[in-house]
Amino acid sequence: MLSRKDLFKDTLRKAAHAWKRIVELRLTEEEAGMLRLYVDQPGYVDLHWGMFVPAIKGQGTEEQQKKWLPMAYKFQIIGCYAQTELGHGSNVQGLETTATFDPKTDEFVIHSPTLTSSKWWPGGLGKASTHAVVYARLITEGKDYGIHGFIVQLRSLEDHSPLPGITLGDIGGKFGSGAYNSMDNGVLRFDHVRIPRDQMLMRLSQVTREGKYVHSDVPKQLLYGTMVFVRQTIVADASKALSRAVCIAVRYSAIRKQFGSQDGGPETKVLDYKTQQSRLFPLLASAYAFRFVGDWLKWLYMDVTQKLEAKDYSTLQEAHACTAGLKAVTTSATADAIEECRKLCGGHGYLNSSGLPELFAVYVPACTYEGDNIVLLLQVARILMKTLSQLTSGKQPVGTMAYMGNVQYLMQCKCAVNTAEDWLNPVAIQEAFEARALRMAVNCAQNIGQAANQEEGFYERSPDLLEAAVAHIQLVIVTKFISKVQQDIPGPGVKEQLQNLCNVYALYILHKHLGDFLATGCITPKQGALANEQLGKLYAQVRPNAVALVDAFNYTDHYLGSVLGRYDGNVYPALYEEAWKDPLNETVVPEGYHEYLRPLLKQQLKLSRL
Amino acid sequence: MLSRKDLFKDTLRKAAHAWKRIVELRLTEEEAGMLRLYVDQPGYVDLHWGMFVPAIKGQGTEEQQKKWLPMAYKFQIIGCYAQTELGHGSNVQGLETTATFDPKTDEFVIHSPTLTSSKWWPGGLGKASTHAVVYARLITEGKDYGIHGFIVQLRSLEDHSPLPGITLGDIGGKFGSGAYNSMDNGVLRFDHVRIPRDQMLMRLSQVTREGKYVHSDVPKQLLYGTMVFVRQTIVADASKALSRAVCIAVRYSAIRKQFGSQDGGPETKVLDYKTQQSRLFPLLASAYAFRFVGDWLKWLYMDVTQKLEAKDYSTLQEAHACTAGLKAVTTSATADAIEECRKLCGGHGYLNSSGLPELFAVYVPACTYEGDNIVLLLQVARILMKTLSQLTSGKQPVGTMAYMGNVQYLMQCKCAVNTAEDWLNPVAIQEAFEARALRMAVNCAQNIGQAANQEEGFYERSPDLLEAAVAHIQLVIVTKFISKVQQDIPGPGVKEQLQNLCNVYALYILHKHLGDFLATGCITPKQGALANEQLGKLYAQVRPNAVALVDAFNYTDHYLGSVLGRYDGNVYPALYEEAWKDPLNETVVPEGYHEYLRPLLKQQLKLSRL
Repeated sequence: MLSRKDLFKDTLRKAAHAWKRIVELRLTEEEAGMLRLYVDQPGYVDLHWGMFVPAIKGQGTEEQQKKWLPMAYKFQIIGCYAQTELGHGSNVQGLETTATFDPKTDEFVIHSPTLTSSKWWPGGLGKASTHAVVYARLITEGKDYGIHGFIVQLRSLEDHSPLPGITLGDIGGKFGSGAYNSMDNGVLRFDHVRIPRDQMLMRLSQVTREGKYVHSDVPKQLLYGTMVFVRQTIVADASKALSRAVCIAVRYSAIRKQFGSQDGGPETKVLDYKTQQSRLFPLLASAYAFRFVGDWLKWLYMDVTQKLEAKDYSTLQEAHACTAGLKAVTTSATADAIEECRKLCGGHGYLNSSGLPELFAVYVPACTYEGDNIVLLLQVARILMKTLSQLTSGKQPVGTMAYMGNVQYLMQCKCAVNTAEDWLNPVAIQEAFEARALRMAVNCAQNIGQAANQEEGFYERSPDLLEAAVAHIQLVIVTKFISKVQQDIPGPGVKEQLQNLCNVYALYILHKHLGDFLATGCITPKQGALANEQLGKLYAQVRPNAVALVDAFNYTDHYLGSVLGRYDGNVYPALYEEAWKDPLNETVVPEGYHEYLRPLLKQQLKLSRL
Repeated sequence: MLSRKDLFKDTLRKAAHAWKRIVELRLTEEEAGMLRLYVDQPGYVDLHWGMFVPAIKGQGTEEQQKKWLPMAYKFQIIGCYAQTELGHGSNVQGLETTATFDPKTDEFVIHSPTLTSSKWWPGGLGKASTHAVVYARLITEGKDYGIHGFIVQLRSLEDHSPLPGITLGDIGGKFGSGAYNSMDNGVLRFDHVRIPRDQMLMRLSQVTREGKYVHSDVPKQLLYGTMVFVRQTIVADASKALSRAVCIAVRYSAIRKQFGSQDGGPETKVLDYKTQQSRLFPLLASAYAFRFVGDWLKWLYMDVTQKLEAKDYSTLQEAHACTAGLKAVTTSATADAIEECRKLCGGHGYLNSSGLPELFAVYVPACTYEGDNIVLLLQVARILMKTLSQLTSGKQPVGTMAYMGNVQYLMQCKCAVNTAEDWLNPVAIQEAFEARALRMAVNCAQNIGQAANQEEGFYERSPDLLEAAVAHIQLVIVTKFISKVQQDIPGPGVKEQLQNLCNVYALYILHKHLGDFLATGCITPKQGALANEQLGKLYAQVRPNAVALVDAFNYTDHYLGSVLGRYDGNVYPALYEEAWKDPLNETVVPEGYHEYLRPLLKQQLKLSRL
């Protein structure tokens, strides 16, 4: 309930306090990250550690790293990542900011030639950062070499005022009452700002003293490792955000009762309604599914990193498709699921004290940042089409695309399911999902093949390609969930519960996308009905363990920040108490009564100045 | 960017100003309603006019109306509608507040016996209202007669303080930074508050001086008319909210360019991307669809009202199902669509200056209030099941359910579509939608029939019943759209455009719910693919007229309140200008710099008190 200014000031306070403790307690990098996680509010430090430092590490020379990283590690400078512009987000190659080399002074001149070239959105830029990695078109010897990164000081280290030629500000209020309003997403314009040549990040390419543009021998592919890393953390965060929302909705649904009383007896818990279960349990299963696929992505990142170091690029494209697609599918599903959890809490979910409105508002940008989800899915689709076209030349697909090598079988296989229970067989599920994904991709490829040219065909069929990409990624999630529950899992009964959730996830996706499965002939309408029947049985099995399955996320009441999701279930006293904290309740008679309510009630408005 | 208190005070100011003008200009009721619409902010007056006055009109005797309405019409009293309690929303019959008749004093004693019986949510209750229609269990002669309405004064007309025994407050912050935070949704508790007997709303039933409970001869069914009326306005509002969001997203998509430049030429407008079209044009079509079905509902309300006056209840149940279902389907679709429009505006859609975050936050409660959408759809499903079961006894279904009488044909008909163009035939569309809805309902009925008892079967199959209810309501929307475009429509080419939108809406729903159509054998996979092909062609036809189709909504820039949706398309200067208005930009160096940023940068945090 703070004003924007007070909220931002409070964020600065929290960041300073957290840093003080990190230094005092000599926390490791990992521990410091955990502490920031539990501060649980977007702030400039996220960009400093998550983007500024990694950019210098990944794109700076050893010398540059030696110069800048110690200052960044000690917070002697605060950095952000200034890429996105008012007119350009997804199309990085279209950025307009220029960095023109001036050989007379051995400097780059950074400039914003148009209004749309204003840097716009970078977090931490508006008010906090002293430095930024700025992405701009490198121009030297009259030639445009495209987008490169430059370290630029923005503000004085003495009084924090913007340096000459630099315009800085905050871009204004955002979704929600808190959420990203604690972040100073900023606008930045350059009026011919000069920086030394050695502030161009030069690991991959350099400009010499004379102004010659040269490539280093460092392979460009190394950059992909960072992208895989960042997107892997986004998938992990999706599971975190979703599990918080699901925890609130499941616990509250076990407390809230409505209807169904007989002869004045107790009403039915809403969690016992099949409609509530059919909406909520798939989201519970998704929280687990995203957790496991996120864990697996961590492994993939390490695998890709090792291979890159050995200059083995064979899995890079597949790993890129996989992380891009998982980022898109998990963030979209999570954003929708948080809002669905809010609705599942009925009217009370609309109160900020439920924690859900802010959880939604702070989460949804994940669908847009680090690659708009639609753009990412089209990249996945492009790689799917490429992989298919290479099959004829005998190139075997790898990793999560290996199943595409099985094209002959998967194009004609028939689902063997005869009873509802047959759908509990992971082999049946796996095959149905593989056949669906492959057949959708093949359909797209055939339709593209009929177009005048490939590019035109891809453009025309892009809505279908999106669906094929989603089908492929859902297969990846189902596959990783299945392999997780086939491992040894300690704790009595835990494996069985996870198997239930795995089946719920797979059959829910099958039911939701039934059109895909039927249209491609992967299953029959009868088999679709059996899957739905089995899904209902699985909900009944999940029900007794639902609360335990969200307690297992192990969130404290403080971290959940929801009166509805309290561990002790004392929902109503908490709701009631929380209400009185609203500033409107500071007085019994509201401010404005004498000016606006009393004259209205007393028919004296004519005389009043409004 | 106002604090909660300032925002609320400002709402009081606007309401007073609007009322002053309404009186000065002697506006008619309809004109006054339009003025309130354009104030465009939730406030206590909505409940006064929309719920308090209608409740007295509908449930009060002539004498009561004579006493209370003139005061309400002049705003000598401000009223609200206190039904929902902390523990009870959807299940009105479960409300706990009691109104016990005391024959000694000829009074009712209103009491809140439990914490969960606290009135909770009523708009205007928290701070503004002087009176409320309170719903409570009527108890007389020791017997509980269920829920009845009572007019209760809450606050002193002299100083606005709560009357003795009454506790009043605001229930706290809600979704969004503005949205419903301008409304004083309130909490109310009674400690044995006494009101005269004649403040019970006595049109349908009375308590005599002696305490005898008696029914009047006014038929209870009259109350349904009000419900149809309120829900009809909600459907009309859905179209309004959706068309605003679509207007913003379409206009911005025609300005925003990204990717696709060749040799440094201009980039492609995002509206030209097939993926953007396939997400946005169905929403544009939905805005029109909901408008037309809303217009038709207005007619239905008048028809029902006339029939009720003639004591003809034959269409009442069908009309109830129709309005309940349309309320549920249009509000859910609209809430999702506003958020989709926001995402379609990319990152900038996340800024409050886009207008979309607040449009979403202020709209979503429509999914919950006036009947939770899931509860309403189950009511529709119940009536569908009843209608089916009565077919065997020869009872012919009426109105929007008339098609169910055609069960023999619709259960076995085969879709005749052979080419993509065949899907432009309204007869083919209509039949496919009728067959799908009917077959889903029949499937449900058969499954319920296999259960041990009807109630148990209904409970077990409720997730399927929800889907059947949605299918029925989507048929209604498609049907009304088809009949609209078959009428004479003035203006050259207008009819053709509306026909395109009608086909887009129908084929989009068909594609989205392809599983339903295929599983019930209403169409073949091949026909489904043809529908999708035709949909792509329709998008291409909508594209050149898309901007005109949103301009036709005729919203002023002021009313749209979106820098992205500006009529003149000057999006970027407007975004840039708007940013500087944020309070954070009042100073170049942010508040908190000296306390929290400088000590951090200067490594002096150890010495600072945080």
